Amino acid sequence: MTSSPGGAIGIFDSGVGGLTVLRELRRRLPGEDFVYLGDTARLPYGTKSADTVRRYALNATAHLLGEGLKLLVVACNTASAEALDAVTAASPVPVVGVVEPGARAAIATGARRVAVIGTEGTVRSGAYQDALRRLDPEVVVEAAPCPLLVPLAEEGWGDHPITDQVAETYLRPLLDRGVEALILGCTHYPLLTPSLARIAGPDVRLVDSASSVTDTVVRDHGALLSGAPGREGRLRLQLTDRSERFLRIAASILGATPDEVELVDVV
Amino acid sequence: MTSSPGGAIGIFDSGVGGLTVLRELRRRLPGEDFVYLGDTARLPYGTKSADTVRRYALNATAHLLGEGLKLLVVACNTASAEALDAVTAASPVPVVGVVEPGARAAIATGARRVAVIGTEGTVRSGAYQDALRRLDPEVVVEAAPCPLLVPLAEEGWGDHPITDQVAETYLRPLLDRGVEALILGCTHYPLLTPSLARIAGPDVRLVDSASSVTDTVVRDHGALLSGAPGREGRLRLQLTDRSERFLRIAASILGATPDEVELVDVV
Repeated sequence: MTSSPGGAIGIFDSGVGGLTVLRELRRRLPGEDFVYLGDTARLPYGTKSADTVRRYALNATAHLLGEGLKLLVVACNTASAEALDAVTAASPVPVVGVVEPGARAAIATGARRVAVIGTEGTVRSGAYQDALRRLDPEVVVEAAPCPLLVPLAEEGWGDHPITDQVAETYLRPLLDRGVEALILGCTHYPLLTPSLARIAGPDVRLVDSASSVTDTVVRDHGALLSGAPGREGRLRLQLTDRSERFLRIAASILGATPDEVELVDVV
Repeated sequence: MTSSPGGAIGIFDSGVGGLTVLRELRRRLPGEDFVYLGDTARLPYGTKSADTVRRYALNATAHLLGEGLKLLVVACNTASAEALDAVTAASPVPVVGVVEPGARAAIATGARRVAVIGTEGTVRSGAYQDALRRLDPEVVVEAAPCPLLVPLAEEGWGDHPITDQVAETYLRPLLDRGVEALILGCTHYPLLTPSLARIAGPDVRLVDSASSVTDTVVRDHGALLSGAPGREGRLRLQLTDRSERFLRIAASILGATPDEVELVDVV
């Protein structure tokens, strides 16, 4: 099976975080159709075992492939870190994860010492650490799991004194070792940019997945993009659990409450 | 089907929080066999919709009934608040939830103004509010969802300056309205007692589920208890996802790393 410009771009995440990637993709590629799946009935992925994350990622992949895709974006760092190989093997259409683009963007800053922050699963997998060292064997890599940042983002405390203190607790050891670039290795973290930037200071470059993934899609898969001028792409939002919480956070990311949300079962 | 002293007491929670209830039950009923199920592959329940919580609670119930129970304890506040009726209807053995015992314990303090804190699901359901007013129509009830407290407990920050500040943010409006008793309406919250007690101050009684549920089991279901002196009951721990995180937190609650954990699928 080959991909053609006729299908949609599928995106999945455990929940709302991947909407930061969707937002950037739609801004740059307004003519594309998108299907976004948030596995809200089983989120978060970041605290669960690699086996369970792989099972969930394959469930999501099978579901989205049934919607008619030309490209699949794994917009969840934990799933990209722990399941990208399995998803790629299962998918007849190209798959783009968030880890490789994020690592590439960090190296492109010229930083010699790069830190990645993410969920326990993402950091434990070593995926960012490996990708950075593959791109530049000389780079010094630091990594720290930051489990409280997702709940703080979901509480809407992205610019809050308590988030500043939590960020200080997690980031201080990295900053004291002189990191020059900080990969926001979780799609929720761009929601915390005000606090994270304040604690990291002006000399540390923050690298998030949204723009680097979009760059990768445009650069590596341009032949799949429809590019019809003036076309307005369709967006479908699918969730495995319909929660008020998701809709509230989605509205803050997308700038408007989604018109229509489909409830789906991907088990 | 009737219950007999021969079966085990089944307990379920979305994850580790219910271990605070298990610990108290085992302390008071050392001769009983227990089967504890933590639905760690799908936790948390507290941010999900009532429909999804009911489905998960019924999955857990069906699984535990297959293990041979004489009594089922729903040691998850969210599941008790949103699914106790459904679980009771599905169970041939008696079912004890955490809401009614907690409400009863709060009323027994003599407080005229009672606050309940819990997950978004627990507070939204109104189950504690209804139970308190049924027991005492004159009592004034306050309620506040506290979504960050579970992640803080899981991070091991039960006695931490940041937890003090988060607790202050959530509790101050309740304290300013003069609450005299505070129901810890989530089985994780006893892990935060140092911080919560500091912020609530000495005049506010903290009420947790663990001892009140155990009181209810002993009082209402004494005929089911084995009571064989000197017998040492068996404990089986079952999880839907085996995560290091669970084992770490379980060790801190139970005082020792569990010897054996079975991985089960309850879908």
